[in-house]
Amino acid sequence: MNYSLSYKNKAVIQPSALSMKFSEPAVDLNTFSIVRIDSSLHDETWETVWGEYSRIRDHHKELKLSLVDRNGSGILMNVIFRVFNEGLGFRYEFPQQDKLTHFVLADERSEFRLTGNHKTFWIPGDYDTNEFTYNTTSLSEIDASSSAMSQEIHAKTFFDKNAVQTPLMMKTAEGLYINIHEAALTNYPAMNLVLNKSDFTFTSHLVPDAVGNKAYLQAPAKTPWRTVIISDKATEILAANRMILNLNEPSKVEDPSFIQPQKYVGIWWEMHVGKSSWDYSGGQVGSQQQSRVPHGATTENTKRYIDFAAAHGLKGVLVEGWNTGWEDWFGKWKEDVFDFVTPYPDYDVNYLSNYAISKGVKIIMHHETSASVTNYERWMDTAYRFMNKHGMNAVKSGYVGRIIPRGEHHDGQWMIRHFERVAQKTAEYKISVNMHESVRLTGLHRTYPNWIASEAARGNEFNAWSSGNPPEHETILPFTRLMGGPMDYTPGIFQIKLDVYDPNKKEQVQTTLSKQLALYITMYSPVQMAADLPENYEKHIDAFQFIKDVAVDWDDTRILSAEPGDYVVIARKERGSPNWFIGAITDENSRATTGSLSFLDRGKKYVATIYRDAANAHWQNNPAAYTIEKFIVDSNTNLRLNLAPGGGAAVNIMPATTADTRSLKQYR
Amino acid sequence: MNYSLSYKNKAVIQPSALSMKFSEPAVDLNTFSIVRIDSSLHDETWETVWGEYSRIRDHHKELKLSLVDRNGSGILMNVIFRVFNEGLGFRYEFPQQDKLTHFVLADERSEFRLTGNHKTFWIPGDYDTNEFTYNTTSLSEIDASSSAMSQEIHAKTFFDKNAVQTPLMMKTAEGLYINIHEAALTNYPAMNLVLNKSDFTFTSHLVPDAVGNKAYLQAPAKTPWRTVIISDKATEILAANRMILNLNEPSKVEDPSFIQPQKYVGIWWEMHVGKSSWDYSGGQVGSQQQSRVPHGATTENTKRYIDFAAAHGLKGVLVEGWNTGWEDWFGKWKEDVFDFVTPYPDYDVNYLSNYAISKGVKIIMHHETSASVTNYERWMDTAYRFMNKHGMNAVKSGYVGRIIPRGEHHDGQWMIRHFERVAQKTAEYKISVNMHESVRLTGLHRTYPNWIASEAARGNEFNAWSSGNPPEHETILPFTRLMGGPMDYTPGIFQIKLDVYDPNKKEQVQTTLSKQLALYITMYSPVQMAADLPENYEKHIDAFQFIKDVAVDWDDTRILSAEPGDYVVIARKERGSPNWFIGAITDENSRATTGSLSFLDRGKKYVATIYRDAANAHWQNNPAAYTIEKFIVDSNTNLRLNLAPGGGAAVNIMPATTADTRSLKQYR
Repeated sequence: MNYSLSYKNKAVIQPSALSMKFSEPAVDLNTFSIVRIDSSLHDETWETVWGEYSRIRDHHKELKLSLVDRNGSGILMNVIFRVFNEGLGFRYEFPQQDKLTHFVLADERSEFRLTGNHKTFWIPGDYDTNEFTYNTTSLSEIDASSSAMSQEIHAKTFFDKNAVQTPLMMKTAEGLYINIHEAALTNYPAMNLVLNKSDFTFTSHLVPDAVGNKAYLQAPAKTPWRTVIISDKATEILAANRMILNLNEPSKVEDPSFIQPQKYVGIWWEMHVGKSSWDYSGGQVGSQQQSRVPHGATTENTKRYIDFAAAHGLKGVLVEGWNTGWEDWFGKWKEDVFDFVTPYPDYDVNYLSNYAISKGVKIIMHHETSASVTNYERWMDTAYRFMNKHGMNAVKSGYVGRIIPRGEHHDGQWMIRHFERVAQKTAEYKISVNMHESVRLTGLHRTYPNWIASEAARGNEFNAWSSGNPPEHETILPFTRLMGGPMDYTPGIFQIKLDVYDPNKKEQVQTTLSKQLALYITMYSPVQMAADLPENYEKHIDAFQFIKDVAVDWDDTRILSAEPGDYVVIARKERGSPNWFIGAITDENSRATTGSLSFLDRGKKYVATIYRDAANAHWQNNPAAYTIEKFIVDSNTNLRLNLAPGGGAAVNIMPATTADTRSLKQYR
Repeated sequence: MNYSLSYKNKAVIQPSALSMKFSEPAVDLNTFSIVRIDSSLHDETWETVWGEYSRIRDHHKELKLSLVDRNGSGILMNVIFRVFNEGLGFRYEFPQQDKLTHFVLADERSEFRLTGNHKTFWIPGDYDTNEFTYNTTSLSEIDASSSAMSQEIHAKTFFDKNAVQTPLMMKTAEGLYINIHEAALTNYPAMNLVLNKSDFTFTSHLVPDAVGNKAYLQAPAKTPWRTVIISDKATEILAANRMILNLNEPSKVEDPSFIQPQKYVGIWWEMHVGKSSWDYSGGQVGSQQQSRVPHGATTENTKRYIDFAAAHGLKGVLVEGWNTGWEDWFGKWKEDVFDFVTPYPDYDVNYLSNYAISKGVKIIMHHETSASVTNYERWMDTAYRFMNKHGMNAVKSGYVGRIIPRGEHHDGQWMIRHFERVAQKTAEYKISVNMHESVRLTGLHRTYPNWIASEAARGNEFNAWSSGNPPEHETILPFTRLMGGPMDYTPGIFQIKLDVYDPNKKEQVQTTLSKQLALYITMYSPVQMAADLPENYEKHIDAFQFIKDVAVDWDDTRILSAEPGDYVVIARKERGSPNWFIGAITDENSRATTGSLSFLDRGKKYVATIYRDAANAHWQNNPAAYTIEKFIVDSNTNLRLNLAPGGGAAVNIMPATTADTRSLKQYR
């Protein structure tokens, strides 16, 4: 069967085939008879537990084709299309039936036949990692075997030079924006896309398991949704990430009151820059440096972070390297590394969890699994009980390395089920989880709001010890990785130049300081790290005020302007508050942007605090040059924000007091 | 390096190479310099927790060669030889060293170069199963691709037509018996042997993992022992299974008081013969029959077995099919089948466990994992807590099907670690475990006496629905499978002909009834099932008396006569009692054997109750023809036991009372 898709009467997806192939039973489902057609119209509005919007409207038409295989198997398959203003979703369903119960998927072949050689923002297809920088090329220039196939990523599995990952962002010569992804990825492998350059057709390529099968299913079964979002405005693409959420199931967490959007600090960046180590013996740092350094997660150092968080109203303190195992966790493909309950001797877990609570702060647990998932699954219950006992209700997990069960991949069905199992089990223990090195998100945080964020892309950490994230990186992520859900990017690095830690250190963060602030708005996440060291914040306590003030949960979001690879300007209204925040970022080019504040309550006065690049700021040469200004603004104001190369601006807008209106100037 | 082995000045193993190959780091350890040689003499006697002997002497010389790789890696490796009167054990050790920490084993190449084309009792090499019938051929006739490569086994993985499994029993033309096996298999894959027919050299072939590696090790590390047992008497081979135990570590179970050798009945054989089903809906039976039958594990039926056990002094009642999941457990490679805690609605677990305890009986838990081991590992703690709560302290586990993690094998390192993990975790919960479809045993029950038995070979169940176990089968098992440890063979089938259950049923048990009794002695296990249905025992209550009387734990064992493939006669003394029991079995040939009772206390009178084949008995035509006789015997008695084709005899010898000596005749 075939489908096609047009937008404003122009073809976007030309007729493209949809078929399924099983290995058990051995059938190829590619021609069908239609048994029945159902269509329906849906319009409902639902409330988010947390998010960029407090309420989201789900308005779509559904077409359900009930099909029967015409090759003789008698197998029934449904294809369901949902058409939104923003785009299309479709999925396959295998209803309960006599002819099919258990089956093994050899291949799903969903095609996306594009109309031309579009500009594309892509990372290589891979079974194990998504931590690449982005390539911007025409479709015909895609080559996943070269370029950004970074050697800096430990576990990666290349499989086809024409393969890319989703969310895949494209732009046609006519200025149409197209985004392909998937929604509601459960009990199924993640989808890569392989390009046939002769006709610009992408075909789905599912991540295989250890023996080459794609999925083990049992009818009734359904695949994730394949999604195509289209607009002639880039800003509307970003706003349409709601379509992905609408294609996911409502929350399964009955009482979500334990889920707390929050800002946090942590013993983490100091290991990345080589100041301290994860392990007790001092050898495990993220930096390239070789000499031994002190252990980071000591009682004393943790206390310092708790005190800092408490002093500044941040609610969480992440502590990495608190538990035994780090001496040989990396690169060994070793099964029994961590037990998730045994602290190093210099880390007093009882004292610290009580001390944190006494200060109104909570320690965020860290579970690095070293990708030994069989081991983690054995320990999960014990580890979560340990957290409950110590009053912790948030965990950051990690999956660095080659997966155990050996032969499985980060993005295969087995791991997809694991991630969902973690979301379910943490919910049982009233714990929120923030997964690193996990599969890219597909809107599942609607269903499991305690799965509060993921990394699942190249985060800020790469700036500490690798070729880093070029200035355009953060202008592409909202159009790619973030279409599926929140990213724990860990912004907020104030000490941009890293040679203060080691004179030989060439790496640096590839933004200005102001841009680090803007990322709190442009890079949506309900958990946001203030990733730098306390002492670096104390040196710029005026700029740190923005991090203290910025919200992490929102009633509304307005994409003011955006172009993938160039710039993103977003305004958001704090949930349950009249405050608004604006973030504006640019790539390596300086840029003057304007933003209308027409979303403010008419007739009301606000104080806008603008954190911006100084006139001579530059991400490479002068990254810490920033200016802070305060003005009175209102709904008629048009903000002009000048962004330095690799720069950004962050604006905090709060209702003005009478004193404010007297002491501050009106913005002109 | 090479080693060779001779017995009474005749070569048994000609110079044979020992080498190791790693994939990470990529080194081939095949030539060495000797760094140091240590030798020592050991002589100690240790007490068993349970077994064939209450005390075992460990008397050996040890030679430890400390070697360094001569190819330039600088890697240190030790080879340790232990020489016993009964044979040889050797292992490889990788001591803690600067040059080697984590490493991946590509191959262990331990050779066993034999001196001729010996007669061999073999089953095909396989990564997943050991449930074959035995082949008896010369070495040159080994062909694992044909013959007994039964289609009746669901999960099997053939890899080489010249491959066989251990324990491998051979006999030279000169009448020398040679047995090759391994001891203390932990954290390492099981060893198959591949024959080079040109020079009769076996080379070790380790079971690979999902990606083709053999083992992931970390120095200090050691391999299992490779063992060669030699004697010119077949009886001494059987007695030398103690050498395997001596090469294992002492018990790690601190308080073994919860471990109870016992006889048990169970809801099990009735499913195999098609009388009832494992599943609730009545479709899952072992028999070939197709129609639906009642669910076996109902409250009512379980009560009947409990009453029967209590009435006859048996301590355990196994109940299979008590828990949900059986409808689609088999052959689906499905991960989430059983949860090990949810009974079918017709099985009242609370009532039954209390009822059993009130009758002095315990229900034996059943954990069929369907080989979905990732799933079982997630549930283990919960499942064992459930057992503790319901007063159960013994579990029979099963691993039918293809392993999950997919690509792993029953006998690979990952599963070997799983089996050990189960032994350790059940010990923590004070539970004994009896594993079916697990790896062949290597004496580890010395270290984990709560790992009380395994099946790990072709058990009695195959007689119910397959080509079955030919009459010679049980005369070979003691020389092969049982060299490594106890087998839960499940003897005691009285209703030999199975067409009583279904007129079309052609299969039958391939022994006489008397031989079923003899198996309680010849097939050593501390847990012995009375496998038939209560109603069948009630029809032969006189013969059932032997099962009621027979012990399951022993102070001493005497191998009276034996020839692999022909006959086995064994006498055992009940632990802590003056009672002796004798079992005698033959293959398809009738046979007259004699057994001297010189092991009895001199001058003391005993009553011997002899359960033997009637004169016209025959396994196929007249299997239930048996005779029971009682005589007075003493240490001068020479028992003559006439065994029918496929027959056997069982003898119970207890101290005579004065009344006995008056009423019974002296045996002549």
